[in-house]
Amino acid sequence: MNYPAQVRLVEVGPRDGLQNEKQPLPAAVKIELVQRLQAAGLREIEVTSYVSPKWVPQMADNHQVMAGIERRTGVRYSVLTPNLKGFEAALADRPDEIVVFGAASEAFSQKNINCSIAESMERFAPVVQAALAAGIAVRGAMSCTVGCPYEGEIPPERVEMLAGLMKAIGVQRVDVADTIGVGTPLKVQRAIEATCKHYEIDRVSGHFHDTYGQALSNTLAALQMGVWNFQSSVAGLGGCPYAKGATGNVATEDLVYLLHGMGIATGIDLDALVDAGTFISDALGRPTGSRVARALLARRG
Amino acid sequence: MNYPAQVRLVEVGPRDGLQNEKQPLPAAVKIELVQRLQAAGLREIEVTSYVSPKWVPQMADNHQVMAGIERRTGVRYSVLTPNLKGFEAALADRPDEIVVFGAASEAFSQKNINCSIAESMERFAPVVQAALAAGIAVRGAMSCTVGCPYEGEIPPERVEMLAGLMKAIGVQRVDVADTIGVGTPLKVQRAIEATCKHYEIDRVSGHFHDTYGQALSNTLAALQMGVWNFQSSVAGLGGCPYAKGATGNVATEDLVYLLHGMGIATGIDLDALVDAGTFISDALGRPTGSRVARALLARRG
Repeated sequence: MNYPAQVRLVEVGPRDGLQNEKQPLPAAVKIELVQRLQAAGLREIEVTSYVSPKWVPQMADNHQVMAGIERRTGVRYSVLTPNLKGFEAALADRPDEIVVFGAASEAFSQKNINCSIAESMERFAPVVQAALAAGIAVRGAMSCTVGCPYEGEIPPERVEMLAGLMKAIGVQRVDVADTIGVGTPLKVQRAIEATCKHYEIDRVSGHFHDTYGQALSNTLAALQMGVWNFQSSVAGLGGCPYAKGATGNVATEDLVYLLHGMGIATGIDLDALVDAGTFISDALGRPTGSRVARALLARRG
Repeated sequence: MNYPAQVRLVEVGPRDGLQNEKQPLPAAVKIELVQRLQAAGLREIEVTSYVSPKWVPQMADNHQVMAGIERRTGVRYSVLTPNLKGFEAALADRPDEIVVFGAASEAFSQKNINCSIAESMERFAPVVQAALAAGIAVRGAMSCTVGCPYEGEIPPERVEMLAGLMKAIGVQRVDVADTIGVGTPLKVQRAIEATCKHYEIDRVSGHFHDTYGQALSNTLAALQMGVWNFQSSVAGLGGCPYAKGATGNVATEDLVYLLHGMGIATGIDLDALVDAGTFISDALGRPTGSRVARALLARRG
């Protein structure tokens, strides 16, 4: 079995994680989190989004957060932009990459952004063009690539279709997201395979939620296909809005432990990462969602 | 990639899980748990142990529990026997299988049972002989096959040695246990490989703790080697005595979800299993340790 020698992680905690928090955190806490994450060795961080504060009040401080972090050379700061207006707002903050998104499920697309999958891609086309013209990289988040809270299982053909639409509008790389964490290894491999009809494996990343505890086995299955880009959230930030009380994003600590245990380099200092997770968990006033953090903290005593 | 068409699970919750509970549960609750587990489709259940109640008061009701369960044809009831005295006590309760144990770590063997690995196997030899003579199957639990709380990483050669000793005293099949849950896929595969120097793959089972959240990825790695016997604990019963507050055994629900998701048959009804887990979690007055149970219960609303 061949495994990649190194893996690159996109830390999505500050955006994907914190956007689900009922009580928005102060910008200073978010800035401190990003600082700690980059100090721990993360080289890609999804910092914030430029969605209307009416819909996502948690990210209303996007300018403040982007202005507050000390930008480091070699670190890629990405932001979510839902439309041209959001992109224009983001532009002032000089993100290295913008994230556009689409679902592999028609029902999810309708419920989430009130339009069809095809329409959502048409709407993103000018955003992608504008970003590329401004020299900003573009990543596409493909949600519900395995299962959907409304439709149930999603066939690989739908993933292939979405990946094709992403490619057609100019998206440079894509995330295969198991948004509700229902995936298991063979299903996740089929979704990745479908994506690879349009993107080479180096441009495909795995974004697995741990709702059913399957994220790391799905990661192993993806690694075995040659995937070497993954997304995760420190302390497992971000619950699952489709199953209250359940886990959301896989914890970065758990993913790093897996990778290091297999001899795969990440450039991340696990202890510093656990400290970053403790910092944000304390700020939120709740225990970490990372099993590795719990075990290591218990061992520290 | 070839995967087994079916997997056989040994449910260890009633013994390995409950023996770590500070407050012993009433025998009636344990009996009800075993009943529910077999009703959910479990065909191997580790019911209790015959260790001195001075050391393990939680299992002092072994006779009562074994007498109380309605034995079903086709279900294998196993019990842990630490020595000849324990075996003789167990005999009256007609177990289908006894479990003897040994560590791949010298330090763990000394701290846990106060003798060397070789001595522990010598002590078990007459127990194994007596069991086989009585027509009772014998399984050997090999602990610390990946890591040890005292010695750290355990090289595969130590696992090979322990498996050889188990084989020499007549143990019919063995569990490769990652007792403290520190293993990752390649390390676990090396421990299994070492075991296979003495046992064919059909006689090797995986027993992975989820302390670091790695149990299911280790399971996937073991499945890929042809292992089709696994052990787990409903609701993730049994914490980790070496890292207070951390998780112990992998939850049976999480394992079953993985297997079913991959099209691998287990004969288990996941919903009934979740109910069994809810029953015992309620009896213990704490939330389930199973992510699948949490997600499914959240979905039930």
